[in-house]
Amino acid sequence: MFNIALLGAGRIGQVHAVNIAEHRETCLYSVVDPNPVNARALSDKYQARLQTLDEAMADPAVHAVLIASATDTHADLIELAARHGKAIFCEKPVHLDIARVRDCLKVVEQQQVPLFVGFNRRYDPQFRRVKTLAGEGCIGKPESLMIISRDPSPPPAEYVRVSGGMFRDMTIHDFDMVRFIMGEEPVSVFAQGSNLVDPAIGAAGDIDTAFVVFKFASGAMATIVNSRRSGYGYDQRLELHGERGVLSVGNIRENQVEHWGDAGCLAAKPEHFFLQRYRDAYAAEWRHFVEVLHGRTQPECSGVDGERALYLADKALESLATGRAVSL
Amino acid sequence: MFNIALLGAGRIGQVHAVNIAEHRETCLYSVVDPNPVNARALSDKYQARLQTLDEAMADPAVHAVLIASATDTHADLIELAARHGKAIFCEKPVHLDIARVRDCLKVVEQQQVPLFVGFNRRYDPQFRRVKTLAGEGCIGKPESLMIISRDPSPPPAEYVRVSGGMFRDMTIHDFDMVRFIMGEEPVSVFAQGSNLVDPAIGAAGDIDTAFVVFKFASGAMATIVNSRRSGYGYDQRLELHGERGVLSVGNIRENQVEHWGDAGCLAAKPEHFFLQRYRDAYAAEWRHFVEVLHGRTQPECSGVDGERALYLADKALESLATGRAVSL
Amino acid sequence: MFNIALLGAGRIGQVHAVNIAEHRETCLYSVVDPNPVNARALSDKYQARLQTLDEAMADPAVHAVLIASATDTHADLIELAARHGKAIFCEKPVHLDIARVRDCLKVVEQQQVPLFVGFNRRYDPQFRRVKTLAGEGCIGKPESLMIISRDPSPPPAEYVRVSGGMFRDMTIHDFDMVRFIMGEEPVSVFAQGSNLVDPAIGAAGDIDTAFVVFKFASGAMATIVNSRRSGYGYDQRLELHGERGVLSVGNIRENQVEHWGDAGCLAAKPEHFFLQRYRDAYAAEWRHFVEVLHGRTQPECSGVDGERALYLADKALESLATGRAVSL
Amino acid sequence: MFNIALLGAGRIGQVHAVNIAEHRETCLYSVVDPNPVNARALSDKYQARLQTLDEAMADPAVHAVLIASATDTHADLIELAARHGKAIFCEKPVHLDIARVRDCLKVVEQQQVPLFVGFNRRYDPQFRRVKTLAGEGCIGKPESLMIISRDPSPPPAEYVRVSGGMFRDMTIHDFDMVRFIMGEEPVSVFAQGSNLVDPAIGAAGDIDTAFVVFKFASGAMATIVNSRRSGYGYDQRLELHGERGVLSVGNIRENQVEHWGDAGCLAAKPEHFFLQRYRDAYAAEWRHFVEVLHGRTQPECSGVDGERALYLADKALESLATGRAVSL
Repeated sequence: MFNIALLGAGRIGQVHAVNIAEHRETCLYSVVDPNPVNARALSDKYQARLQTLDEAMADPAVHAVLIASATDTHADLIELAARHGKAIFCEKPVHLDIARVRDCLKVVEQQQVPLFVGFNRRYDPQFRRVKTLAGEGCIGKPESLMIISRDPSPPPAEYVRVSGGMFRDMTIHDFDMVRFIMGEEPVSVFAQGSNLVDPAIGAAGDIDTAFVVFKFASGAMATIVNSRRSGYGYDQRLELHGERGVLSVGNIRENQVEHWGDAGCLAAKPEHFFLQRYRDAYAAEWRHFVEVLHGRTQPECSGVDGERALYLADKALESLATGRAVSL
Repeated sequence: MFNIALLGAGRIGQVHAVNIAEHRETCLYSVVDPNPVNARALSDKYQARLQTLDEAMADPAVHAVLIASATDTHADLIELAARHGKAIFCEKPVHLDIARVRDCLKVVEQQQVPLFVGFNRRYDPQFRRVKTLAGEGCIGKPESLMIISRDPSPPPAEYVRVSGGMFRDMTIHDFDMVRFIMGEEPVSVFAQGSNLVDPAIGAAGDIDTAFVVFKFASGAMATIVNSRRSGYGYDQRLELHGERGVLSVGNIRENQVEHWGDAGCLAAKPEHFFLQRYRDAYAAEWRHFVEVLHGRTQPECSGVDGERALYLADKALESLATGRAVSL
Repeated sequence: MFNIALLGAGRIGQVHAVNIAEHRETCLYSVVDPNPVNARALSDKYQARLQTLDEAMADPAVHAVLIASATDTHADLIELAARHGKAIFCEKPVHLDIARVRDCLKVVEQQQVPLFVGFNRRYDPQFRRVKTLAGEGCIGKPESLMIISRDPSPPPAEYVRVSGGMFRDMTIHDFDMVRFIMGEEPVSVFAQGSNLVDPAIGAAGDIDTAFVVFKFASGAMATIVNSRRSGYGYDQRLELHGERGVLSVGNIRENQVEHWGDAGCLAAKPEHFFLQRYRDAYAAEWRHFVEVLHGRTQPECSGVDGERALYLADKALESLATGRAVSL
Repeated sequence: MFNIALLGAGRIGQVHAVNIAEHRETCLYSVVDPNPVNARALSDKYQARLQTLDEAMADPAVHAVLIASATDTHADLIELAARHGKAIFCEKPVHLDIARVRDCLKVVEQQQVPLFVGFNRRYDPQFRRVKTLAGEGCIGKPESLMIISRDPSPPPAEYVRVSGGMFRDMTIHDFDMVRFIMGEEPVSVFAQGSNLVDPAIGAAGDIDTAFVVFKFASGAMATIVNSRRSGYGYDQRLELHGERGVLSVGNIRENQVEHWGDAGCLAAKPEHFFLQRYRDAYAAEWRHFVEVLHGRTQPECSGVDGERALYLADKALESLATGRAVSL
């Protein structure tokens, strides 16, 4: 049984708390959060301790930390946990500044603790199946990947202002998926964006609608289609085209009931947002991390993956600014 | 080029007129209809003659007749045309009274003219494909057939009163499909019906909702699900289950555009009614009849098929009245 | 926290053990099974006691029993548990003999303990949504219900011999669904069956393919389409037709990945069998039972429901034997 | 009745010949083709005259020409027909060189004859319905358009060499659709391409796989996904995303039969290629042209549209060469 200190008891911390508690080999040992209401709610629910950060770090019973706190604290917490020899599961991103990410990863390397960065979509059973089938040669050599990724509705502009922008905050998942599915590093990126959804996002200096296009050394390509507001739930689709056809993942609906009536055939919308759509993925990534804790495997999704995704986001921003494809 | 006299210029006559005119080897030679408005409209449209029935029968240039007149005239017209040596395409049914059907078929046999009875659904490319694939062994031995057949909205009660009832008027197509798809004669039938859609139909002595169940000597089974009013267009589906799976034909939609919005994912309704849904089938059955005219083949769907379908309707009515399965 | 004694540690007992253990308000307190291997496996996995039946009955710490043992023990165990004042969750059926069921339910009534009979499909979110939407008037007055229910592959003939036959063993779920969805009692039943799948089933005196047809006092109808072997996974579909359209539940696929290639567009099969397809339903029925344990609600699915479903099975068998619709 | 001279009796000429012959108000008056075999086959089939080009031009009975000859003859034939006062239906493109196109359009303008350029996809009922629904405000302001367009298999390299390249030959349809659906002119284009399908295409100096990205003055965007080889038929899809959802057109399948078996649920491939997929569109564009002949409307799809699509192809090639978005 591995004891986990949960750093951050907000929305995403609560998602992970369930998976920690339900896994037979992990225990939600303690909750650390400066907000006493959130911390208390989770510690009560799972009979976990309340600890300060220092207590958790000093506590030899804590085997690992799960970092689910505000983005700007991730790198500091990773370094701190690494220096205390704790295994680390960190929500994406490591940091919004790539230099800071690199410094942080050096510390992790020196301390030789495992660091898993939570790109949850890699653990979605559908997307993973595409990777597996493609790897088995089901469609021959991959030629083009299309990722459609639209949030149900835009975040408030205040959030946008501190988020690092859509590419670093939202598209970063898609950047990671491009690398994950294609299994090779892109050699160039072109990005185009607009502010169409909410003028407040534009006023905050960000875009809310984008196309991003990648090229790989093999000549294969990938594109990402993004919007901060779909109008019909969380749109999460992916198609991989290869020599011998397509592997396609459509949306997963809120339910399977159809109503056929005078207006037509009405099916349910896609599942509302990431908490619903990726529920299985969150549980699966936790199972993977437990394997890491056992020492049976390395993190499939490491600090380097976090850094690479951020690098793609930075370069996409550069392309957005210059109107040209940027070499990688 | 075969010259065709069209007997009956109403709705279904107009459907056939198009196919006669568009086929390279047939010519809409003349139109015969006691209603001068309908007759004139069609004859003008296709530059066809207006003829009386006697004129058409006496005219040696007429190779064949297409009978699309009122149901109660079919048998008389078939006999008349047969006696004049014309090849005959007759809309279903031959007659609502099976004794009259049998007498009529005897005349046809004596005159040795080809008689095709227009069970259009046999020529629907989807249903035919099921029969073909099943015949090739795609699902092994057929075990159960399910036909779902619902009209978009009920006919007026006055029509119901002269229609011979739902089984003889509407379900008769499904009875023929059961024989066509299964390729064997059923040995028993059970029918259950209700008047749920329109009380006027009940007042006219008919039902508007029914389940019919068949058994075959092989032990295989078939069921028909009927309603006079779907609420969502013309519902025409079919599933054949066998040893190694199912062959399934769903509805064909009015269009392929989907709208994904706040209410869900909305697709179009099934095509509205038989004129739309079976447009290809009407053309295909005409192409078959032209092959019959050439003497290259026998009618796939003959007077005997018309008689058998009516026989099943009569026996289904007997089951409805007695509450028991009726042996065939 | 309610302590549950699990009576029966076989396949279905294991399904329930997970749900008991994962629910925050129930504890898998003890396992009772004459087979020491099964019992030990479960008690080890969930840190539960091993008890004899007598120990469990006598133990005041046991609040409720979950009966997941062999079918022919259910009624005896229900009576025993009732006499010891335990709340009861019993897997369907109560017994294969309806007289025995009625005697058993009398004991339960006298002892005034809650008895829940596990018709899991009522708790499937899809089917329940159909009932809810229909109840809200979404399609107007219900007119006809169609349930398609095919197992992936037939059970061994030895099982068939002790199962009470397909209607009492497999179709019984569909009988319950007919009552649940329609919300009224049928007034007649007609059944037709064949032995097509496995001759050994016929040799054991049973059928493996069936259509069952019901009529209700309102004139509404229902039909069940059954096979012991689909050839493509667990086929569990349902359509309710009413005045203003259809509510339809299709199969849930093993995964959402499609492969479009030279042979066509290939999607995954339906989920393999009930353990997969009804996983959510098993958890949901357990949550309902916990509400019953709290005294906040009565069992939605009671001994009477178990009796009624068995009565329909018996009457369907009578119809099968006589070839006529049987009044209820 | 309008008499049409068909210039070019090859594959696409044959498609148009059917529509000319089947339309009640047009007559396939004559066929002009230097290849006597093709010309004879069509003239025999439709009882049309064989004419030389000079004869057709000089014949006052010829109301209009349909130009379906080799691409490099289009501009010359347009000018010739214009100078003889014939109305003109020309298959796309007008010419592969934009200066030549402009000169040609000047002649047409001077002669004041109607010129329709055959971008058939505008007349596809599905795509047109998207435009209509979007125009009615069904999804609010359009924000991003995605066109997926893959041919079933690549053309021979010899064809590629004279085709003007993929953008001018194949993508040109998609360029036109971008303008048609969005109803505004793009302000920039970025293109990325690879040679992945057939090395011979690369050796001929062309690409076979591409992404093209557009931006509009409103900030809206469009992307085109192309491949010369799908592996599963003709992939023709389109999605328009706006403020309140998506309008989506999927592929139209070769047939509606599904086979559910051990390997999964197999549906048919998309229709094989443009002759099948756009059969209705070819007929509909001809009906539009007949309205033009009547003087009831102007060509919806004019020489200017042909020029604009070629301009986008040229600019996409410029982007391909420079790796930057090109302003339009």
